[in-house]
Amino acid sequence: MMPGLKAGFELNARLEADSEPLMWLGLCELRIMNDSRWPWLILVPQRPGIEEVHDLTPLDQAMLTFECNTVAQALKKSTDCTKINTGALGNIVRQLHVHVIARSEGDAGWPGPVWGYGMREPYKRSDLHGFCEKIRSALQ
Amino acid sequence: MMPGLKAGFELNARLEADSEPLMWLGLCELRIMNDSRWPWLILVPQRPGIEEVHDLTPLDQAMLTFECNTVAQALKKSTDCTKINTGALGNIVRQLHVHVIARSEGDAGWPGPVWGYGMREPYKRSDLHGFCEKIRSALQ
Repeated sequence: MMPGLKAGFELNARLEADSEPLMWLGLCELRIMNDSRWPWLILVPQRPGIEEVHDLTPLDQAMLTFECNTVAQALKKSTDCTKINTGALGNIVRQLHVHVIARSEGDAGWPGPVWGYGMREPYKRSDLHGFCEKIRSALQ
Repeated sequence: MMPGLKAGFELNARLEADSEPLMWLGLCELRIMNDSRWPWLILVPQRPGIEEVHDLTPLDQAMLTFECNTVAQALKKSTDCTKINTGALGNIVRQLHVHVIARSEGDAGWPGPVWGYGMREPYKRSDLHGFCEKIRSALQ
């Protein structure tokens, strides 16, 4: 198996299409939403068949909290945003995934939520790579 | 001090106006959003001056995870909803608070997020009390 690959786990096709892989954490696959309107990361716990956080084992719940908060801190530090928004909705994509988004006053849709707001605006490849590098180095 | 009251903690005025107290958990004040469109609970960690989950101590982060997941499970069980939505946004009210909302196919705004959707529709007092009792007994 590839490093970081967990038995039986397959990434939802829509998550795969809308976001790009960044790195594997202990529990989660960390991905970048391919939407240049906001710095937006997604954590997907690599467990098959899980829809709700409370369906994870207690240890996985603790791991998810740790990983989300580490990522949130790195995102806040590297973007100097006003506020981190986190959410686990899953009304459309049922596979459990947690959004961690850097919000700043005056950004698209501020102060409303990002979900369902307008159309996704994909990054230019060079901007996407730059953002990936920024997050990777903030996480080290 | 009153039971459950934590030193230096004061509930944000807007949270107080929009929601009703339900009970105190170990860390959080559990409140019900006074909006009858969705079964909607709010957990407010009783710590002064905290805006982001990652600003809590590691122990408080673990407590918050535990309390959110306990509440989510109780809400799912008592409403038989399609999906739990959780989120910590705080773009308007900066005091850290976590939303736990029961969503069902075809509810107001489905499958979009609840935040920023239309106008709040307060409960009739008897319905609010009924909902409170349902949640209290699901948490026991």
